[in-house]
Amino acid sequence: MMPLVNEYSIGLDLGGTNLRAAAIDRSGTILDKVAGSTQFSAGREAVMEEMVTAISRIRDKHGVGGLAGIGIGVPGFIAFKEGVIRNSNNLPFLENFPIRAELQRRLASFVILENDANAAALGEKWMGAGRDVDDLVLLTLGTGIGGGIISGGRVIRGVTGMAGELGHLIAVPNGNPCGCGSRGCVEKHASATAITAMARLLQLGENLTSKEVYDLAGRADETGEKARAVWSVMGDCLGVTLALLINTFNFPLYLLSGGMLPAWEFFAPAMLQAVARHSATYRLTHGATHIQKATLGNEAGLYGAAYLSWIEDRPVTA
Amino acid sequence: MMPLVNEYSIGLDLGGTNLRAAAIDRSGTILDKVAGSTQFSAGREAVMEEMVTAISRIRDKHGVGGLAGIGIGVPGFIAFKEGVIRNSNNLPFLENFPIRAELQRRLASFVILENDANAAALGEKWMGAGRDVDDLVLLTLGTGIGGGIISGGRVIRGVTGMAGELGHLIAVPNGNPCGCGSRGCVEKHASATAITAMARLLQLGENLTSKEVYDLAGRADETGEKARAVWSVMGDCLGVTLALLINTFNFPLYLLSGGMLPAWEFFAPAMLQAVARHSATYRLTHGATHIQKATLGNEAGLYGAAYLSWIEDRPVTA
Repeated sequence: MMPLVNEYSIGLDLGGTNLRAAAIDRSGTILDKVAGSTQFSAGREAVMEEMVTAISRIRDKHGVGGLAGIGIGVPGFIAFKEGVIRNSNNLPFLENFPIRAELQRRLASFVILENDANAAALGEKWMGAGRDVDDLVLLTLGTGIGGGIISGGRVIRGVTGMAGELGHLIAVPNGNPCGCGSRGCVEKHASATAITAMARLLQLGENLTSKEVYDLAGRADETGEKARAVWSVMGDCLGVTLALLINTFNFPLYLLSGGMLPAWEFFAPAMLQAVARHSATYRLTHGATHIQKATLGNEAGLYGAAYLSWIEDRPVTA
Repeated sequence: MMPLVNEYSIGLDLGGTNLRAAAIDRSGTILDKVAGSTQFSAGREAVMEEMVTAISRIRDKHGVGGLAGIGIGVPGFIAFKEGVIRNSNNLPFLENFPIRAELQRRLASFVILENDANAAALGEKWMGAGRDVDDLVLLTLGTGIGGGIISGGRVIRGVTGMAGELGHLIAVPNGNPCGCGSRGCVEKHASATAITAMARLLQLGENLTSKEVYDLAGRADETGEKARAVWSVMGDCLGVTLALLINTFNFPLYLLSGGMLPAWEFFAPAMLQAVARHSATYRLTHGATHIQKATLGNEAGLYGAAYLSWIEDRPVTA
């Protein structure tokens, strides 16, 4: 089916503190971008209004006729059909509120709600590092570790929207205790938070950011050596988790995104060694299994949210 | 679309030593079953002829007109589009031979080749414990541990047919070395082979089968206590792996099959404790995450192989 001339979709990324939205056409060209300004501490109604305002501004400019739909990426567990956030550490005031239905009412347009890491994974599949494949796993490396799984070009969401909780895969036996109740979760050993903690243990400094530990790793002295050891341990833990995902999915592509990517040179060697050690699938599929950097940065979520308008069935509205 | 009247499919399960085939209609009723008799040691041509003979016998009886297709389940890694076994410990003489093309030529019918654990998972989804869901993971507990993943009603195969290698997920950190090159793979700690090894370590006996260790576990004496400890360790390791799968997929259903299922009463308590300990997703989705016994036994693979005729696109033949 040929797309309508000038057909576009709006993707909106609702972060923990601010929002961004973009109009993107069917070919993946960003037509327009806006950022919000409201403080989220102002509460639910302020955030809802901020979303409506951002979307309306874009729609007024590009027209209602060509709008395929609106995708909203949010942190938290999503009840997809209902268009509701069941649980969100960052946006607790939006939990169990009928966001999708309410936005559809206020905007009179088709709206889809999606988990932010799922949206980012889908964005990378559509226009990023995964554009040539239908199956990929994305790990987002930030203060925590999130994940998104794309199978056959579609998001795997699970029965309660909790699929892809890859930060809680066990990377270190009897490792650091995690708030989830388990121990050794990969996000306790390979996130930015873990980098900060390891840097403290090695007496590199208090509360160093992962960027600072990355900068230290470039030094030729003993401090540099310690900082490189931090990245090596992080890479090893990440590799254990990747091995597990490779053994499970045998997908062609595993992507890493987030603020720690610049340290790739320091963590990737240990990561790839651990993958090879723990995954015969990886060793046997040399050339068919790729572990790469995501390429869309923090726009991946905007792309993915927008793309949903074209690939998802319109849920039956309550 | 209404199925043809009397439409049926033929499923064939090629084990390590023998074959079975069945005609199954669209409603899941088994119309007919045959078993092969050839010794597989007779080699490739003998096995190919055995398959053709078994299928022809069924087809002659039920007619060519109603035959939707033929599905063949085999142990090993399958190149699905090509219909070729790339690697099989049990059937090395069939590796890289164009099985699907050759059977299509000899039988002049549509043939699909599938991994046996994938076929079993699909069979359970169609007519077994998974008939009410579209997403499930099956773990087959035998001398090794295999797996099949069904997402949206379809098999996840991976880029080289190696998806679902769940026996090699790490259950025990720095655990027993595995032939795959890693350590602590769940099949080294929770398979029938592992039960035999643990029973030896606890001086319960040499080369006990898992059935024998199950029988011992029913005793009230110290021997019974040791045997129950074996099952408890096995259950704990299995639970770690299930937690990992639940965190990854958030599917509604995880099935166990194989000869060790009768020992469920002895391993399930430790298994469920480990799942709860290592998966917040499990704890949070109480009532939506089910861990159950598969119900089709060794007919699951026949059902799944047959079902493929109705759900897979016909691959382009070379």
